[in-house]
Amino acid sequence: MIRVDGRQVDEMRKVKITRNYLKYPAGSVLIEFGNTKVICAATIEERVPSFLKGSGEGWITAEYSLLPSSTQTRNARESMRGKVSGRTHEIQRLIGRSLRSVIDLKALGERTIMIDCDVIQADGGTRTASITGAFVALVDAVATIYHPEKPFPVKDFVAAISVGLLKDGTSILDLCYEEDSNAAVDMNVIMTGEGNFVEVQGTGEERPFSRIEMNAMLEKAEKGIQELIDYQKDVLGQLVWKVGREP
Amino acid sequence: MIRVDGRQVDEMRKVKITRNYLKYPAGSVLIEFGNTKVICAATIEERVPSFLKGSGEGWITAEYSLLPSSTQTRNARESMRGKVSGRTHEIQRLIGRSLRSVIDLKALGERTIMIDCDVIQADGGTRTASITGAFVALVDAVATIYHPEKPFPVKDFVAAISVGLLKDGTSILDLCYEEDSNAAVDMNVIMTGEGNFVEVQGTGEERPFSRIEMNAMLEKAEKGIQELIDYQKDVLGQLVWKVGREP
Amino acid sequence: MIRVDGRQVDEMRKVKITRNYLKYPAGSVLIEFGNTKVICAATIEERVPSFLKGSGEGWITAEYSLLPSSTQTRNARESMRGKVSGRTHEIQRLIGRSLRSVIDLKALGERTIMIDCDVIQADGGTRTASITGAFVALVDAVATIYHPEKPFPVKDFVAAISVGLLKDGTSILDLCYEEDSNAAVDMNVIMTGEGNFVEVQGTGEERPFSRIEMNAMLEKAEKGIQELIDYQKDVLGQLVWKVGREP
Amino acid sequence: MIRVDGRQVDEMRKVKITRNYLKYPAGSVLIEFGNTKVICAATIEERVPSFLKGSGEGWITAEYSLLPSSTQTRNARESMRGKVSGRTHEIQRLIGRSLRSVIDLKALGERTIMIDCDVIQADGGTRTASITGAFVALVDAVATIYHPEKPFPVKDFVAAISVGLLKDGTSILDLCYEEDSNAAVDMNVIMTGEGNFVEVQGTGEERPFSRIEMNAMLEKAEKGIQELIDYQKDVLGQLVWKVGREP
Amino acid sequence: MIRVDGRQVDEMRKVKITRNYLKYPAGSVLIEFGNTKVICAATIEERVPSFLKGSGEGWITAEYSLLPSSTQTRNARESMRGKVSGRTHEIQRLIGRSLRSVIDLKALGERTIMIDCDVIQADGGTRTASITGAFVALVDAVATIYHPEKPFPVKDFVAAISVGLLKDGTSILDLCYEEDSNAAVDMNVIMTGEGNFVEVQGTGEERPFSRIEMNAMLEKAEKGIQELIDYQKDVLGQLVWKVGREP
Amino acid sequence: MIRVDGRQVDEMRKVKITRNYLKYPAGSVLIEFGNTKVICAATIEERVPSFLKGSGEGWITAEYSLLPSSTQTRNARESMRGKVSGRTHEIQRLIGRSLRSVIDLKALGERTIMIDCDVIQADGGTRTASITGAFVALVDAVATIYHPEKPFPVKDFVAAISVGLLKDGTSILDLCYEEDSNAAVDMNVIMTGEGNFVEVQGTGEERPFSRIEMNAMLEKAEKGIQELIDYQKDVLGQLVWKVGREP
Repeated sequence: MIRVDGRQVDEMRKVKITRNYLKYPAGSVLIEFGNTKVICAATIEERVPSFLKGSGEGWITAEYSLLPSSTQTRNARESMRGKVSGRTHEIQRLIGRSLRSVIDLKALGERTIMIDCDVIQADGGTRTASITGAFVALVDAVATIYHPEKPFPVKDFVAAISVGLLKDGTSILDLCYEEDSNAAVDMNVIMTGEGNFVEVQGTGEERPFSRIEMNAMLEKAEKGIQELIDYQKDVLGQLVWKVGREP
Repeated sequence: MIRVDGRQVDEMRKVKITRNYLKYPAGSVLIEFGNTKVICAATIEERVPSFLKGSGEGWITAEYSLLPSSTQTRNARESMRGKVSGRTHEIQRLIGRSLRSVIDLKALGERTIMIDCDVIQADGGTRTASITGAFVALVDAVATIYHPEKPFPVKDFVAAISVGLLKDGTSILDLCYEEDSNAAVDMNVIMTGEGNFVEVQGTGEERPFSRIEMNAMLEKAEKGIQELIDYQKDVLGQLVWKVGREP
Repeated sequence: MIRVDGRQVDEMRKVKITRNYLKYPAGSVLIEFGNTKVICAATIEERVPSFLKGSGEGWITAEYSLLPSSTQTRNARESMRGKVSGRTHEIQRLIGRSLRSVIDLKALGERTIMIDCDVIQADGGTRTASITGAFVALVDAVATIYHPEKPFPVKDFVAAISVGLLKDGTSILDLCYEEDSNAAVDMNVIMTGEGNFVEVQGTGEERPFSRIEMNAMLEKAEKGIQELIDYQKDVLGQLVWKVGREP
Repeated sequence: MIRVDGRQVDEMRKVKITRNYLKYPAGSVLIEFGNTKVICAATIEERVPSFLKGSGEGWITAEYSLLPSSTQTRNARESMRGKVSGRTHEIQRLIGRSLRSVIDLKALGERTIMIDCDVIQADGGTRTASITGAFVALVDAVATIYHPEKPFPVKDFVAAISVGLLKDGTSILDLCYEEDSNAAVDMNVIMTGEGNFVEVQGTGEERPFSRIEMNAMLEKAEKGIQELIDYQKDVLGQLVWKVGREP
Repeated sequence: MIRVDGRQVDEMRKVKITRNYLKYPAGSVLIEFGNTKVICAATIEERVPSFLKGSGEGWITAEYSLLPSSTQTRNARESMRGKVSGRTHEIQRLIGRSLRSVIDLKALGERTIMIDCDVIQADGGTRTASITGAFVALVDAVATIYHPEKPFPVKDFVAAISVGLLKDGTSILDLCYEEDSNAAVDMNVIMTGEGNFVEVQGTGEERPFSRIEMNAMLEKAEKGIQELIDYQKDVLGQLVWKVGREP
Repeated sequence: MIRVDGRQVDEMRKVKITRNYLKYPAGSVLIEFGNTKVICAATIEERVPSFLKGSGEGWITAEYSLLPSSTQTRNARESMRGKVSGRTHEIQRLIGRSLRSVIDLKALGERTIMIDCDVIQADGGTRTASITGAFVALVDAVATIYHPEKPFPVKDFVAAISVGLLKDGTSILDLCYEEDSNAAVDMNVIMTGEGNFVEVQGTGEERPFSRIEMNAMLEKAEKGIQELIDYQKDVLGQLVWKVGREP
């Protein structure tokens, strides 16, 4: 069984994270999963949403956007249409939840970290690349305001990957756009450094899937996540030791 | 271990489906999961979205809304705010995908079935109640245009239920609002009559969850879904025999 | 002369008000005028619009919406279109004005009562049913904050009914949808328990109407209003004695 | 009893209509009711709304706007707020209905007459001035496309005036802004040249009003309308003879 | 060489400014450039945009709108389309910048002057007429709050004019609509009483233009501006002496 | 006189254009002016705006957007605010006009070239970088549909640069953000390969500027444009010979 780009069923595309990609935000990376390229930036704002005012807790929220020219067929700019699509809303909420799951919002204090994921080129897996890259930008941003006598607000690593089922039932890891378009089942898995699930979203629009098929996909996902978190650690260098450490 | 409303951990709330609840749409039900009440209506429109024109295939799309007075604290009307929230978008897309998964869109022909899920009272589980009730309204609507010499376009049953993990790790079935607000993990599971998964969405915003915990939740979900589909069959009476039958 | 549903010209449809229809709002009813069904809810909010801040006076405002599946032909959801139609605006303003006309806004104090009228099924007369039902929900809501040593802020009863002229000049009471679609003249009349007018809106788009015809319609309206207010009193039971009473 | 500007209770402000006020539209006037000034324009468009396509009938629709600087306190521009207020919607619908009531839409043929009422200065009565002036612009516009062997599509005159009740119960004709702000009851009356009602809208938000008070207001309104229609005839000159005439 | 309306190449249309055109705003004029007619109003508001709060400085902002019936072909009302066009945005920003360039915002103090330019009839040059007229309305408005012991916040005169190149290369002053539609190059020039440029915007969409052609246009513009500022001085009468004077 | 980054007054920042930066659009570049980085993409669509249907002519339109994290202080995403700012509108229109000025729209045929300029990093001059880079993407896109027996639709080169006046009156070329924020006068100049002006936009919000100062700025602009067009030619290589050539 050979995939469209020659990979093994449990082989990821080449992943590359370039730290400090932008000049202005507190943290920023360019993350590449093969041809998929996303700029992830983390900006710290000294305010919180109204439901948190006075609580002493912080917040993390995310925005996601496809550049119009990032997709095979140009996609209309959401600012020109005057509204954000349901798909964008769904992805933004997923990124925000995933990152919040590894943050100690009390330790963060009353500030908001705004995550921007802007997709430069979309070849499948943009939401999982966004989460994986945004985590690194987030650690960089948090480090700029870290007080060494307080706990570091990032409690654990988090990364995301897609898995799926081909029409013949083969489970594969890290789908590119062509595979994604033809898959029977599509699943996004987000896990922590400790190997637990933050989010599992499996969809069988093409056909339902069995418990056994789900397990096969989850195993591939675990392998992929492990590789991604190892790479995040490589990339973060010294900062790795802060994640999850008490003062 | 007793739950806030005295149920066992794997016990559902009382479910009730009232068919033909409205006068005008082709199919409509009121579905109640305890205090949660949703009107689900299915309207047949003789047109398809532009990406299907000329394809011979039909489509199913869904809209979801909370009445402002359905929630503990009044929630602002989306029509007055001029835009639909991310949460609403997410639920609408989920309902649409779930129902499409059991429909033979070719057999449906070039028409759209518009599903409206309007929540009258929200006490947890409104999206799963919406899917479970909308399926019945959908069968009723399809029956009005069914040609006995053609395959019935509904291929299988589909129902949805929520499961979750309490903070102490206990897994529970069919969370009410109070339980949902306090749960560590929340998972929505959508399954067919054949026992396969259409959609699994688990979120551990409060804390990540292990594979073992996920399995415990999935088992409770399977039990709940089985009960729901049995009840759908009761409610549909004669129409049950059409679902999934060839001409 | 027999009407489409066999009623006499001055005969109303069966009216039914179910109090405490919803669990969460301070006051709520389901009101039915024949097949027309509206959920009316009253929520108390401890804030006022900016033009009343510091004035010591309260406010009542109303929102109205048709469920998409409430009408003969499905009507598009206003939240999805991103704006509220002129018809909805007009009805919302009418409901708000009508209820404010019988409320002592000073006695209410600096709080807003938010009225939500959500039409479940629309068979003519949804705006008049909304006003008539919302009044009962309003009294229930006000009673929850009533201080017996202060005047009860509801000064009088208020109810609304539609009247119209058939093409042959016959005036009729309480038009159903089919009659409304065919009427030459349509008039909505809103009156207090004391028998005075709060609002009169007559429209002769099909043909103009004479003073004599207007008088014939107003007489039928007065009869209908009297019956509605008698019924409101039945339904409110003990609370009737509070309306209009000083401490 | 003397009014704020010294008028008798049944005395109108000075009314002035300037025909052909603008260069481009098919018909246009400036109408002045004292300090109230409205530009009314009628534009003929060779298309109809979709619900009339192929019907052979025409349509009349109206838009209304206050210049930001037309009111005592500047009112925010609706284009900048991105939405039209409920009040504007209500007035636009009223103007459209009123003019359609005197037009033979079949004789008009499949075209739309677009009425624009732009208020330059607002001192009370802008909606009634709009209707009264727009009628003249409409006749001028229709005359440009009138075929002498076909019936003239304008069947009758139409004009509008406001009446009201002061707090002491005195009924007055043609309220200026200061009177309107202080009135207990406000009523807009629209009548045809034959003396019939097209629209009656009375509102007693300040206090309810009796049948006797309504009659007193209607009598003053009839006097005012008579004067307005006489003046419309003066202004239209030769065109008067076309209104309501068969070929 | 004769222009469509018989003017010389460096001849302006007849310009007329009517001061105090409206009753309510602090300053208002009707300005006419031939058939182009614009109402310019200046309203003083005792607040500033958030970026100026506490700065002691004021602000001037402008809004511009075409009446739907002001143009050869009716232009759709921006409030009904729910958004403001790019052209409108561009003109509003230009008017605001131009007026701010001659105002001492510190001397104005923490208040905003809101400029409204509403085009009644559009025959070319509406943006330049707006600036030229708004300046006069602005001086009138500022005079109402002027404290004689403080510097008058208007430092200099400002006026605007259009120039252009015909297809044959002839440069002309003050283009009417027909000329504007056929011009090869269009340039708007805004200058102060001292003869300096506030804004130069030249556009050669039809064909590029040379430095020599630009100079020819600028010379005509200077002549036009000189005439406009002379006329502004005539119109302002006594107020002229305040402009640019220290206390 | 030394500038903040050590450049001479007539020295540009380092400019770099990377062709074929994206995988999917017909033409795309990354253009850098120092720290300013813009992705410019050109997509060909086989349709024209309605005003050109059947005309045989094509169109070029442009959209511009700042990534939220591209600026010193994060700028809110226009899609989330639901509307496009005046500044964005102004820039989009400028880019579109500038590129159309060198295109033979008849030779292009009935198709639209959609230009997307997405600013990755903003350090001054984003609109001029957008135009200069978009021209190269446009040539690449046009080349993909070029028929050698027809004229090449790109008639000439076009590039854009900013110039300005410091507070002391010194004129400088190619302002970075810090210079732009402090400049007294800001001017954008767009010129063709033949040395003519396509657009000149000078703004003296801080203080008006004289004819002599304008000439000084224009001379620096001409020098900058010459360098940019030389560089565009280098970058385009073989394609240079097509620009402006007949078949």
